Amino acid sequence: MNNISNRGFASDNNSGIHPLLLEAINKANVGHAIAYGDDEYTSRSVNIIKKHFGNKIEVFFVLTGTGANVLSISAITQSYNAVICAETAHIHCDECGAPEKFTNCKLITIPTSDGKLTPDAVKKHLKGFGFEHHVQPKVISISQTTEMGTVYTPFEIRALSVLAHEHNMYLHMDGARLANAAVSLNLGFKDFTANTGVDILSFGGTKNGMLFGESLIFFRPELAINFKYVRKQSMQLVSKMRFISAQFESYLTNKLWYVNALHANKMALLLLKKVKDIPQIQITQNVQANAIFAIIPQHIIEPLMKKYFFYVWDESRNEVRWMTSFDTTPEDIDGFAEYLHLLLKQ
Amino acid sequence: MNNISNRGFASDNNSGIHPLLLEAINKANVGHAIAYGDDEYTSRSVNIIKKHFGNKIEVFFVLTGTGANVLSISAITQSYNAVICAETAHIHCDECGAPEKFTNCKLITIPTSDGKLTPDAVKKHLKGFGFEHHVQPKVISISQTTEMGTVYTPFEIRALSVLAHEHNMYLHMDGARLANAAVSLNLGFKDFTANTGVDILSFGGTKNGMLFGESLIFFRPELAINFKYVRKQSMQLVSKMRFISAQFESYLTNKLWYVNALHANKMALLLLKKVKDIPQIQITQNVQANAIFAIIPQHIIEPLMKKYFFYVWDESRNEVRWMTSFDTTPEDIDGFAEYLHLLLKQ
Amino acid sequence: MNNISNRGFASDNNSGIHPLLLEAINKANVGHAIAYGDDEYTSRSVNIIKKHFGNKIEVFFVLTGTGANVLSISAITQSYNAVICAETAHIHCDECGAPEKFTNCKLITIPTSDGKLTPDAVKKHLKGFGFEHHVQPKVISISQTTEMGTVYTPFEIRALSVLAHEHNMYLHMDGARLANAAVSLNLGFKDFTANTGVDILSFGGTKNGMLFGESLIFFRPELAINFKYVRKQSMQLVSKMRFISAQFESYLTNKLWYVNALHANKMALLLLKKVKDIPQIQITQNVQANAIFAIIPQHIIEPLMKKYFFYVWDESRNEVRWMTSFDTTPEDIDGFAEYLHLLLKQ
Amino acid sequence: MNNISNRGFASDNNSGIHPLLLEAINKANVGHAIAYGDDEYTSRSVNIIKKHFGNKIEVFFVLTGTGANVLSISAITQSYNAVICAETAHIHCDECGAPEKFTNCKLITIPTSDGKLTPDAVKKHLKGFGFEHHVQPKVISISQTTEMGTVYTPFEIRALSVLAHEHNMYLHMDGARLANAAVSLNLGFKDFTANTGVDILSFGGTKNGMLFGESLIFFRPELAINFKYVRKQSMQLVSKMRFISAQFESYLTNKLWYVNALHANKMALLLLKKVKDIPQIQITQNVQANAIFAIIPQHIIEPLMKKYFFYVWDESRNEVRWMTSFDTTPEDIDGFAEYLHLLLKQ
Repeated sequence: MNNISNRGFASDNNSGIHPLLLEAINKANVGHAIAYGDDEYTSRSVNIIKKHFGNKIEVFFVLTGTGANVLSISAITQSYNAVICAETAHIHCDECGAPEKFTNCKLITIPTSDGKLTPDAVKKHLKGFGFEHHVQPKVISISQTTEMGTVYTPFEIRALSVLAHEHNMYLHMDGARLANAAVSLNLGFKDFTANTGVDILSFGGTKNGMLFGESLIFFRPELAINFKYVRKQSMQLVSKMRFISAQFESYLTNKLWYVNALHANKMALLLLKKVKDIPQIQITQNVQANAIFAIIPQHIIEPLMKKYFFYVWDESRNEVRWMTSFDTTPEDIDGFAEYLHLLLKQ
Repeated sequence: MNNISNRGFASDNNSGIHPLLLEAINKANVGHAIAYGDDEYTSRSVNIIKKHFGNKIEVFFVLTGTGANVLSISAITQSYNAVICAETAHIHCDECGAPEKFTNCKLITIPTSDGKLTPDAVKKHLKGFGFEHHVQPKVISISQTTEMGTVYTPFEIRALSVLAHEHNMYLHMDGARLANAAVSLNLGFKDFTANTGVDILSFGGTKNGMLFGESLIFFRPELAINFKYVRKQSMQLVSKMRFISAQFESYLTNKLWYVNALHANKMALLLLKKVKDIPQIQITQNVQANAIFAIIPQHIIEPLMKKYFFYVWDESRNEVRWMTSFDTTPEDIDGFAEYLHLLLKQ
Repeated sequence: MNNISNRGFASDNNSGIHPLLLEAINKANVGHAIAYGDDEYTSRSVNIIKKHFGNKIEVFFVLTGTGANVLSISAITQSYNAVICAETAHIHCDECGAPEKFTNCKLITIPTSDGKLTPDAVKKHLKGFGFEHHVQPKVISISQTTEMGTVYTPFEIRALSVLAHEHNMYLHMDGARLANAAVSLNLGFKDFTANTGVDILSFGGTKNGMLFGESLIFFRPELAINFKYVRKQSMQLVSKMRFISAQFESYLTNKLWYVNALHANKMALLLLKKVKDIPQIQITQNVQANAIFAIIPQHIIEPLMKKYFFYVWDESRNEVRWMTSFDTTPEDIDGFAEYLHLLLKQ
Repeated sequence: MNNISNRGFASDNNSGIHPLLLEAINKANVGHAIAYGDDEYTSRSVNIIKKHFGNKIEVFFVLTGTGANVLSISAITQSYNAVICAETAHIHCDECGAPEKFTNCKLITIPTSDGKLTPDAVKKHLKGFGFEHHVQPKVISISQTTEMGTVYTPFEIRALSVLAHEHNMYLHMDGARLANAAVSLNLGFKDFTANTGVDILSFGGTKNGMLFGESLIFFRPELAINFKYVRKQSMQLVSKMRFISAQFESYLTNKLWYVNALHANKMALLLLKKVKDIPQIQITQNVQANAIFAIIPQHIIEPLMKKYFFYVWDESRNEVRWMTSFDTTPEDIDGFAEYLHLLLKQ
């Protein structure tokens, strides 16, 4: 058990709830509301999501990021299909096999240097179509931002969606940190989802200030026809849904999503500035959103983690990950950088 | 989409969040906390649960009631097992097949008059042990309170756990409304769970005032050894767990659980008192907790529902269900009863 | 381990291979044939099946009866669907939960007196459509002959298929003993399958003389489009398929299926004749095919089983099942009846 | 549909049934035998298997090679486990996702040059133990012979089993072509299975002359306790099992397995001799059993396949696979080699 007063760079979900989002929950806590989403909050929230992503969508709220990803895949596959993803994808590395358990699909993983799939890398695996001994590739799944803190350009996404559609496949985007990507690209959500051919999106809020609550957006409404059964059967239908909906409404109002993600990304750049010229530290990924990957001297890892918790990414080469968040402060960065220098001097 | 200002008797999950529980969330919203449960709030919360249920337990927080039930079964079965439950069980009627999807087990259902299993009714299905063509019975699952608003006595539960254990089976209790049962029995939680041989329990909070959050209690800790993987793989591990934990801590402190459930049960009795002597109304179940089942004239169902939303239970005989909640007021009851009388006169 | 020389009435799959079917295997054992069904034998066999069942079908060979049933359901359902069947259905009682494991669907079971579903009995369960908390009924599954040795008339089947189709559902028929039913009805296969609205059929051969091999017939070819992946992924694709195909070709040539089933049914009638007037024996089902169900004195069960093996159907009332087969001889019947009389006298 | 008279080098399952094995089926076709394995043939067959593999084993017959592999994994895993295998493994490439569907486990694949795993390559993936976000590695699965026609030495197998056991994992061997490996190693089956730490084995017969029938051998009997339910629920329990058992008895009597595999391996060497010095042909794998992998000029692939069917292994580099079988004749080889030369001259 960890000391809660400890601030750190472990993950953007170590932060709490943004005050405005907690206020939204508070405001929705009035009287009765029909459970499971048949309420005014959910209706309003879906409308505001449509303003950001386009009218021709279907939106469903779910409980966790893993839930949003797994249900996305479940909605567009049969058990004999395969999902192509980066070797570092959350669906492959961090969901304890939930995709295989719930969708029964095979994940075909591709090594990458930066967490990003490319058409060339994917093409090698587009085979066995029509051959009953092979799984049938059906989904290309990408993360935006990636698990390596990098960001796909709209052009790169479009290239993957074209490839997918040429093969009668779908493009899924894991947008647990979609806001950080939008800020990084300086684009609206629609510009690099609907407009670049994404078919289904996990649109997360928890990593950018919500208490809980993720959403799943279908850009092809016909794929959503039976999705409500999938959601319920997968234990991802919340009874007091108004409290997810109210958060999403607030999140997308007055650019709260933007303010939070902008701050997190800025804090990452500030941290980068403080550490990038330290000779004993090697930055290993482009810092395009709110994550920094760095190789640091082994002997400082443990003491540094004790004061500012974070995760070791690759033990074999002392690579660590530092995530910033909507509530990271310049003082956090300063304190961290000072302590880092202190440790390096010892 | 329904009008949220509408108060009604649809379900105890149409209520909002109890103010003290929302306050607990507020108070936990300080600084960072390690995600996924490795935090001080969770640790404290588990300790307080142990005070209520005994020290020799393992506790896990999950997201939904369906999740708590399905994961309970998953933890104690293999796919070739069978789960015996009442025909009215939530796991059979209201989870869209989630138990079959996630555990692959067969549910063997038993018709009952009051939602309660008896050893005699169960015994008929305790067969096929060792025969490979048959599913192997492994779990007896009961709901406390039942879906019919009735309550098992400790003696009745004990009889079922003895039967289960004689056959190398487990007793699971769906305690989505465990507090209402405890109030009804005037007993502590432990008296009719651990002390009567329950092996695994879904202990709910959402239906008695929480925003969200359910727990799963193992009374045989050895069954929980690998459960953390089951929880994650089933998409029921929440990242900002402190906000479930903080609610449970508050819920079990200063008898909040008791006050809320006592109120809900009392409101049901008040409503019963107002309607039981109306000749056109027939109460169909003993009112032992916070639900009333009644057969009412068909022509009043629709207008009554319009003003005070509730669900029709059995369309074929005009049986309806009225649920009371921690936030039901005497004024709600009065208004409802008056309107009911008015409709009956027309 | 049982003595193989023991002839009995346990099941029609205790018999061996009909000599003509073994000869067909022998004849197909020439040279090489492409594995997995892309061979001349399979092509010819499918053609002959079309002669019996109509040209607008798709045919797939699988390995076991359980496989044929489970894959039939799998082909026409999603995991949130339900399958309605008799409480005595093979898919419910004798497949160790394979339908739940592989299709994830819920089985909704209906008590019957004779193993036969009726529209009235089914209708009660046609509910919850469109309601996400409920499984969505999608299949009515019947067995022809039933597990109780009874036979549906074409009229009865038609009534069920009409009901199914009215609700956008399918009718599945478990035809493990389809030949016995055809003989009983004195009709061609098509008359009570394709012509009465059956959508998908498990058409068995093993219980009527084959070594192994079952087939699955789609009467709506559009449902079969992706079935080859389902078959392979469910481990039901045999490599040396020519040896199943060759058997089916022989089985449907020169009325071998008819001769075998006619004999089995006749032997059941002969046995019936020998026992029906014995006062201590009560025949409990109409004998319409090759099964006899009878309540017999408890004390003779064990000694009778020892000499002529059979299964006790319902221990609680000493009901037993006697199955006859293509290779049952009048001498078997005589010997059995004599021994039965002898035991009754003791 | 292919011409059955065509002999070729597509796969060892394009061959028919060895005459002695068909004779064994014939001989077992006498009278009745209890279905599902409770018969004398099965009992005898298990005994003879114990003579080859040791007495402390449990043996189960199943229907297909995919079935044997998937059920092996199913028997020793939970859904949150991972299976480590070569990128070329049959369980990964040729089973249409059956392992994921039935076991729900993730397959972690390792690129190899020769189809063989090494401890070094495996070690990188032995991580995440105890971490709930990661699948838990539980099985190392190897093929003997490998899909590349190579053969593990006992020393190599031992190294992998030691590694597995150090991590509380199991070693599974896919022995679809175990006889070819035994001949290649000039060892008895036990020498490189039980004696080298293999925990569970798919022991195949179909690719070496059987009609159908595979077996699954547990070298840790305690793992087999509930396996009969797994087999039935996975649709791999055959009713007339005596006809698999009788084949296995014959297969292991008078060294039939050896004679067949020896012949197949010899034919591969003969074919190798005929082609290895052709300058336009590059042999890409060591020929250690009954498979030859070769890169050949693209323009001859199609005409060569037309006369002697085989499969292209890697289209991108014109690599093909030629398999020999128990019934390959020197004339087949001569004819093939002559035609190959002819095509190369054109």
